[in-house]
Amino acid sequence: MAADKVLVVGGTHGNERNAPWLLEHWGRHPAHLDRAGLAVELAVGNPAALAAGVRYLDHDLNRSFGLEALADSERSSLELLRARQLLADFGPTGATPCGVVLDLHSTTAAMGSSLVLYGRRPTDLALAAGIQAQLGLPIYLHEGDPAQSGFLVERWPCGVVIEVGPVPQGVITATICHQTALAVEAALATLAAARAGSLRLPVALTVHRHLCSLDLPRHPDGRPACCLHPSRQHRDWQPLQLGDPLFQGADGATVPFEAEAAGMIGAAMAAGDCTWPVFINEAAYGEKGIALSLTTRERWPRSQAWGEALQQLARDLACAR
Amino acid sequence: MAADKVLVVGGTHGNERNAPWLLEHWGRHPAHLDRAGLAVELAVGNPAALAAGVRYLDHDLNRSFGLEALADSERSSLELLRARQLLADFGPTGATPCGVVLDLHSTTAAMGSSLVLYGRRPTDLALAAGIQAQLGLPIYLHEGDPAQSGFLVERWPCGVVIEVGPVPQGVITATICHQTALAVEAALATLAAARAGSLRLPVALTVHRHLCSLDLPRHPDGRPACCLHPSRQHRDWQPLQLGDPLFQGADGATVPFEAEAAGMIGAAMAAGDCTWPVFINEAAYGEKGIALSLTTRERWPRSQAWGEALQQLARDLACAR
Repeated sequence: MAADKVLVVGGTHGNERNAPWLLEHWGRHPAHLDRAGLAVELAVGNPAALAAGVRYLDHDLNRSFGLEALADSERSSLELLRARQLLADFGPTGATPCGVVLDLHSTTAAMGSSLVLYGRRPTDLALAAGIQAQLGLPIYLHEGDPAQSGFLVERWPCGVVIEVGPVPQGVITATICHQTALAVEAALATLAAARAGSLRLPVALTVHRHLCSLDLPRHPDGRPACCLHPSRQHRDWQPLQLGDPLFQGADGATVPFEAEAAGMIGAAMAAGDCTWPVFINEAAYGEKGIALSLTTRERWPRSQAWGEALQQLARDLACAR
Repeated sequence: MAADKVLVVGGTHGNERNAPWLLEHWGRHPAHLDRAGLAVELAVGNPAALAAGVRYLDHDLNRSFGLEALADSERSSLELLRARQLLADFGPTGATPCGVVLDLHSTTAAMGSSLVLYGRRPTDLALAAGIQAQLGLPIYLHEGDPAQSGFLVERWPCGVVIEVGPVPQGVITATICHQTALAVEAALATLAAARAGSLRLPVALTVHRHLCSLDLPRHPDGRPACCLHPSRQHRDWQPLQLGDPLFQGADGATVPFEAEAAGMIGAAMAAGDCTWPVFINEAAYGEKGIALSLTTRERWPRSQAWGEALQQLARDLACAR
């Protein structure tokens, strides 16, 4: 059976409640989501965590899709069981096979509406380019980060994360829901165009490529010695240069962005060079030791292979009945 | 032994991290908190919940200070044990007796810096009036709400909650910390003036007196049918009239503030009457069935008894060593 459905997942993190609320509404009122004619499946990622109002129960579901962990029958955490179930239900060879997944997230960072890609699959790049052409959303390309792996979308032939903020954990707001719905509909319209063979991608894609993540300065006992500098809070996607204020001690002292941190980002930065921070002060990343992530903004010429890959995949997509 | 210390508590809710971070800093660098000459004790309210990054473990610590529950030796939840321990350590007749408590909270609602009072104790009204005179902070008078009781500050002869927002749960920001510190210092300055017999209170106090709380409209199965209307989000302390947009369905339909809800607030509202919402879309109140609380704004002439009560209490306060 062809993987002919598009899977829309919300609540992969149980304390991100906007997308699950939308999914429930779309389940009650299918006409309220413009599916662009495609057959769409809706699934709550982590229902147990959603019911408990927490990000996860045993560990992060969106780090539980590594092939090794999925295959290891000795491991049976709640989230691994759920990952296997989602694949059995909606994976590309599952009971209701889906060829594309849209994984809906929210963040406490002021990311606005954005897309997160894991790696450089041509299908993902084409889908992201199609959405960016419609809505102008910035793209965070998360790659080359051995500390973070096992993301849900990696187990489908095509998949992106739609990430919207700022919104506190546990809070539903009309604005965040509206932004999320717009991005989902832009993704479905892109896939429908690819299915129809009429996909037209822009000449280039702007990506923010992951360089590294920075932790807060800490005391020897591990407790944070600083918080984020107030001039940096809510400034996702805005350039950070050497010497700019980055952290602030509890006594008000400013800690600037320095060459030492810049050295972490591989290529040394020179005065005047910029980096673009994302996920600034995301609540869930404190436990991961991430105060913000740094990216480099790049403009990639469109490759013909991207659209071809997505059109080939999308030919299998079914129309809504 | 006289209750001669001022107790400052942060982290009564373990996912409100700004105040605990300040307390830790003040512990390391006592000179960074202007104590106005008073002897101050610092305590983390719920260290176990703070370590776990959750509001509470068994139940809300800030609803665990009811006399009946405290006295019931059969009951031994984590939070009840912690409430008893805080009183044994820092209660008015505890090992280090404190006569006043400042309980520091944060909220996802856009409350700014504000004060919460539970009932009309003259000492609390005097302390709040002294802070309002310095910083102009709005006061939410929480009373007459049988569904919510057992607040921490009620077990000390004088105590107020300092509530600052908006900030997501689990997030520390420099701005929220700074606002919190300013309010704590204004409270200590007020107490020091009362101790010195030089307290001068304004001629009147503006209070927002609790009327009722409103839940979201819900489907028959209990799930929310609406979210807050986007024009109401972040509009704490701003007037709400009959007919104003209040909720929004997932389909975008507006649900106005209506007489039916207004009927809940005791006195019927007429067209043109106002109510002032607070705690709009506070993340932690979803589980309590509270989407927002409604208040009436009142201007109370200062009573001489307030200042006298606080000055009498404050005479026992010790100077910092």
